[in-house]
Amino acid sequence: MRVHDLPTPALVVEAALLKANLATMASARPGAALRPHVKAHKCTALAREQLAAGHRTFTCATAREVAGMVAAGLGEDLLLANEVLDLSRLRALADLAPAARVTVAVDSEATIDAAASAGVREVLIDVDVGLPRCGCAVDDAAELAARARSRGLHVRGVMGYEGHLMVVTDRDDQRAQVAEAMDRLLLAHAVVGGDVVSAGGTGTYDLHDRVTEVQAGSYALMDTHYAQLGLPFGQALFVEATVISVRERWAVADAGLKAFGMDHGNPTVLGGRVLYLSDEHVTIVPDEGRAVRPGDRVRLVPAHVDPTVALHERMHVVDGAEVLESWPVDLRGW
Amino acid sequence: MRVHDLPTPALVVEAALLKANLATMASARPGAALRPHVKAHKCTALAREQLAAGHRTFTCATAREVAGMVAAGLGEDLLLANEVLDLSRLRALADLAPAARVTVAVDSEATIDAAASAGVREVLIDVDVGLPRCGCAVDDAAELAARARSRGLHVRGVMGYEGHLMVVTDRDDQRAQVAEAMDRLLLAHAVVGGDVVSAGGTGTYDLHDRVTEVQAGSYALMDTHYAQLGLPFGQALFVEATVISVRERWAVADAGLKAFGMDHGNPTVLGGRVLYLSDEHVTIVPDEGRAVRPGDRVRLVPAHVDPTVALHERMHVVDGAEVLESWPVDLRGW
Repeated sequence: MRVHDLPTPALVVEAALLKANLATMASARPGAALRPHVKAHKCTALAREQLAAGHRTFTCATAREVAGMVAAGLGEDLLLANEVLDLSRLRALADLAPAARVTVAVDSEATIDAAASAGVREVLIDVDVGLPRCGCAVDDAAELAARARSRGLHVRGVMGYEGHLMVVTDRDDQRAQVAEAMDRLLLAHAVVGGDVVSAGGTGTYDLHDRVTEVQAGSYALMDTHYAQLGLPFGQALFVEATVISVRERWAVADAGLKAFGMDHGNPTVLGGRVLYLSDEHVTIVPDEGRAVRPGDRVRLVPAHVDPTVALHERMHVVDGAEVLESWPVDLRGW
Repeated sequence: MRVHDLPTPALVVEAALLKANLATMASARPGAALRPHVKAHKCTALAREQLAAGHRTFTCATAREVAGMVAAGLGEDLLLANEVLDLSRLRALADLAPAARVTVAVDSEATIDAAASAGVREVLIDVDVGLPRCGCAVDDAAELAARARSRGLHVRGVMGYEGHLMVVTDRDDQRAQVAEAMDRLLLAHAVVGGDVVSAGGTGTYDLHDRVTEVQAGSYALMDTHYAQLGLPFGQALFVEATVISVRERWAVADAGLKAFGMDHGNPTVLGGRVLYLSDEHVTIVPDEGRAVRPGDRVRLVPAHVDPTVALHERMHVVDGAEVLESWPVDLRGW
């Protein structure tokens, strides 16, 4: 199939760029030094490429991501890096063993008790390293680990996500702040114990020398938000759209608010400027001198990869004008 | 089932509020005076409620919405209020006749030629009434209508969406601007002919006395963006989330960027303030004196209904603590 024959809007992935991104990361953080986060692509076929690049452990954000990874045969060592109180979901996760190994993040008595009573076997203590989100205070880590062990849970170690530091644009400043955040995580680790110290993301993947693994996900496909950091990962993900209407001062293509995660702002368009989006449209101003006709294709670059991918049923792996493969985005929903 | 037993994040619709919204609109614009836009809810079960309220004609934004409506037995008179150049999709729409009546918007020679060669039978001339999006110049409407007729298409009339005027907060100002936009549409109608003059949306539903039908959709479920206009429609749509982590100064619930259309900004939360969202989390600051514990439910109000609904597989119709029905959001995707 040709890219031009794909119904639009279509999520397309440039094969060579994806491959280069995976290779760059696998070289910087080989094997278990990276626990790729599947929330950024929600696609087991892409996870399989990460496995081929040497990573056998994965990070998930939802119970459905975990179950989907196990169903795809990728359940060797999955971390659900999120707190869950839903007992049916926790029981379903527990039931995945022993075929799969599932570790769940906990940060409170309530999450520990839920995990234990649902039959979950292994947990990480999630520690607040500065991002106002999940994670216990460093001072509470020891007590929570003790409680988890008293409930029969194996405490594998700690995790702490410094999400607030992902897009600090001054690298030295970022390095110093990440070091401070990791000081907190290591203080917690010292009292919690275990083999795992898990942290980080694409924006800080190369600033971690004191953790056992980094949870990066966006590096595989990238977006304009991360691109501003000058990381050695190329933009591999695009939304292909068809121009459906042309006027003197603008053109309209068929990819709108329902095709892009909009929390980091508008996508950008190659060969023009995005004016605004509505549900199923993007109005663009083509570059001076660029003639655009109905039926032409345009390519847009999402501002934020994770919520964009979650809007599409498939991603098409392409090489120039040719579609090599179509991968289901099979880890969507909850 | 109880609302508290729904896995979260869950899209919930308050039955009484939905019913009141449908009744208010059906009273203001009964029967064919409203052509409800299904893009706002993407749910044939909800469209069936609109049918029960007296509306037998519907507006769609995508070919898939049209096909889904026909499959659900709601294809009596469907308007695809959007330009389509994809011949396979147009052929599939043409094949829906005679069981269904499908009218497609056209605004250029290219869209007319595509519709005609795919076997589409009926079109509306889409006219630019001030929104920089699809629609031909008023001056081109007559020629396009003639071309459509020469290609054997039945031209049912005109449409023109004044989307740029939906949230003008001064009502007198809005009324005057809508009148000007409709002057343009009626100029086009005078030269195009046909029985249909289609325009409008939830924000202007009561400002149209010169069109045959209004294409409102958001009125059924509403969002915080439209709520600022003081329309007589109540907020019927919420996202129910579970508190999964609590600290001294914030709480975290399990509904994030992948559960909300974010183009109009953050959702709001009942009983607190939203600090920010990440992929699967919302960090909130509960109101002073409100104790929040892990496992508690919180209710969030989306800023923009259309892209929010498109992220969910189901919407649950509830009455207080009880789930009355669960409706598939079956018109998603493309």
